[in-house]
Amino acid sequence: MKLLRHGARGAERPGLLHADGTIRDLTGLVPDIAGAVLSDMGMAMLRSIDPSRLPVVDANTRLGACVGGTGKFICIGLNYADHAAESGMAVPPEPVIFQKATSAICGPTDPIIIPRTSEKTDWEVELAVIIGTKAKYVSEAEALSYVAGYAVSNDVSERAFQTERSGQWTKGKSCDNFGQTGPWLVTRDEVADPQNLSMWLKVNGETMQNGSTRTMVYGVAHVVSYLSQFMTLHPGDIISTGTPPGVGMGMKPPRYLKAGDVVELGIEGLGQQRQVCEADA
Amino acid sequence: MKLLRHGARGAERPGLLHADGTIRDLTGLVPDIAGAVLSDMGMAMLRSIDPSRLPVVDANTRLGACVGGTGKFICIGLNYADHAAESGMAVPPEPVIFQKATSAICGPTDPIIIPRTSEKTDWEVELAVIIGTKAKYVSEAEALSYVAGYAVSNDVSERAFQTERSGQWTKGKSCDNFGQTGPWLVTRDEVADPQNLSMWLKVNGETMQNGSTRTMVYGVAHVVSYLSQFMTLHPGDIISTGTPPGVGMGMKPPRYLKAGDVVELGIEGLGQQRQVCEADA
Repeated sequence: MKLLRHGARGAERPGLLHADGTIRDLTGLVPDIAGAVLSDMGMAMLRSIDPSRLPVVDANTRLGACVGGTGKFICIGLNYADHAAESGMAVPPEPVIFQKATSAICGPTDPIIIPRTSEKTDWEVELAVIIGTKAKYVSEAEALSYVAGYAVSNDVSERAFQTERSGQWTKGKSCDNFGQTGPWLVTRDEVADPQNLSMWLKVNGETMQNGSTRTMVYGVAHVVSYLSQFMTLHPGDIISTGTPPGVGMGMKPPRYLKAGDVVELGIEGLGQQRQVCEADA
Repeated sequence: MKLLRHGARGAERPGLLHADGTIRDLTGLVPDIAGAVLSDMGMAMLRSIDPSRLPVVDANTRLGACVGGTGKFICIGLNYADHAAESGMAVPPEPVIFQKATSAICGPTDPIIIPRTSEKTDWEVELAVIIGTKAKYVSEAEALSYVAGYAVSNDVSERAFQTERSGQWTKGKSCDNFGQTGPWLVTRDEVADPQNLSMWLKVNGETMQNGSTRTMVYGVAHVVSYLSQFMTLHPGDIISTGTPPGVGMGMKPPRYLKAGDVVELGIEGLGQQRQVCEADA
């Protein structure tokens, strides 16, 4: 299934993408694409519904982030060897983790808002993993069974805030609208191999990133197991698994986003995003 | 006012500490100590209530974290010059920020859970600031008007996870029960000067930290204004403002917590916490 959330920001309603390409409304059947709905039991319940009998939602409706109730948005840093190289950093001996503020989360076509003092706003197409079941001290072998599904994420990053403004990456990763997530959560049964998905990102039509999750250093199962050794993962938590080469920071000379730029990105089988960049008001 | 949340974990109810020392129940009057209840209007509404007419809650009831609906738990690193020195780090030229997972948040007497592989679980008494009103690009002069109030926080930290396990501090700061917050949120009108509060922490009765918010490098108003340049702060967000000297990591030899240790901590006017350390199951 392809689960989504549609409607105005902060008032999104649950829905799904039907096989005929229409968006169907799940309002009243489940409270949100969140919490227990993300569990295996919740998914089985959703599968029992005949989507062709659900109301059609206007195709032009805004989509929100494809998951609600996110308690934490964890990112894996330098998780593609080539991206580490372009960033001038070594591949770490174990996963580097950091958090984006959950207030950065937004929908797949919501604008990238360039903060007032930003000069180095950059893009990062990433495979996002969405937790379905509470996970603590889980093994790598069982880790994927705790995953509800996958989505596209744009881990928008302000490089000066991230690396030139005193330690830790949080402040370059957490700005408002720096976490486009969606368009939909593709349930894990529809993703045969999360480590073999092509992924791409374009700026103003020009391809910047063109990679595959095949070259991820620490794969999804490892990352979920690893994180669960440090903290409980809860349904709705998002793990963004790092970006392949081709970010603006790695170009010679570096290239950053400006108001009016159009960013498009996608991952094989998970859909596409499109954002227009805006200066912050 | 001293606002609190009482009852079983995950099912806390709103309440307050009455001047007579009893806990009073706010169930049914406000949904939670969260969201719009934290705004100036919400506070004015709460002040209009006569607490002596509210039901008394059993004095032995568990207290939860004093605020709910926390979207982000931001911490300021190395924000006391003497603590930076004991950590072998320089005072940063601007605030260092990092995030604790919100899943680490718990009540003031909930145990410190020592993760399975931990050997370096440490304590940090800190002044927590709780946001009352959405704040973006606010000046230092107006910053405190966005604060709902203050609370004691224990920024429990696993030093090996934080500094020896590949970049970024998140994994040493986000373990379950690493964020005791409370016992109550003291509204800002009752805190004459947040930069002149004595603070202390004892382990098994022995004083380890004995400082004052007077020696904070970047004060509360500066920190709130600073953070709001990077991201919107929302009601219920917690900002923990750093710890004075006396953490276990800074001792010669270092000293860390083990199962059975009792940690007590407090801040002038904001109440006390007490935790027993437990090995994770």
